[in-house]
Amino acid sequence: MSETDPGFIAAVEEARQGFAEGGVPIGACLVSKDGKIIGRGHNMRVQKGSATLHAEISALENSGRLPASAYAGATMYTSLSPCDMCTGSCILYKVARVVIGENKTFVGGEDYLKQRGIEVVVLENEECKELMRKFIEEKPHVW
Amino acid sequence: MSETDPGFIAAVEEARQGFAEGGVPIGACLVSKDGKIIGRGHNMRVQKGSATLHAEISALENSGRLPASAYAGATMYTSLSPCDMCTGSCILYKVARVVIGENKTFVGGEDYLKQRGIEVVVLENEECKELMRKFIEEKPHVW
Repeated sequence: MSETDPGFIAAVEEARQGFAEGGVPIGACLVSKDGKIIGRGHNMRVQKGSATLHAEISALENSGRLPASAYAGATMYTSLSPCDMCTGSCILYKVARVVIGENKTFVGGEDYLKQRGIEVVVLENEECKELMRKFIEEKPHVW
Repeated sequence: MSETDPGFIAAVEEARQGFAEGGVPIGACLVSKDGKIIGRGHNMRVQKGSATLHAEISALENSGRLPASAYAGATMYTSLSPCDMCTGSCILYKVARVVIGENKTFVGGEDYLKQRGIEVVVLENEECKELMRKFIEEKPHVW
């Protein structure tokens, strides 16, 4: 698991896209066991006034309705440590691994993911941190 | 907390509506601390091919984007014990209480909700059970 994984590159692209749209710059990408991107998305809180379309939820939603087997062994890449809801979504869909761009801005349910048997990898990616830093500086009231 | 609470009545209405639409008959309703319904919805897995619009997520989504204070002390009514994702959504929004129609069909994150300081009330409502029983009998492949 590294910053050059296609799933991670896609998650960061999604975060950048969110920033470009004036939204919360968090992106995610769900990759199946055999390495296929099955869904990607970014936080839509600002863009859609959505309380639930966080990056991971968007990625799952954009995957469509798949059989449970499609998620087995999958990896959820996300640019920021997942909140409790997104943590729960990874547990619900039984992903095998959550790869996190950074957890300096926010630490979510990493311990709970591990407790539930999900591997957690934190990459400490500089671009993910920088996007959040710029966003919080420009729009502290939104974050 | 009882079966005559307006929030619970709304959650069951939503579950019934889901059944009428041919969907998974689970409904939810979010009620603010001062007793106002701020959002209600039902599972849209079948209707929208959605992987994330469970009843509680729909209720939160239909609440729009509110300040964090709007959820403080709120009660989430749901016709069925919440899955891990919906459990996480209640924790994320810091609701004070989750009132569950039934947990015979499925037991979700009740223990974790309690562990995170959220009150859990199970009503063992017959209509909630019956809706799920009929649904699973008619569409075992969907459940």
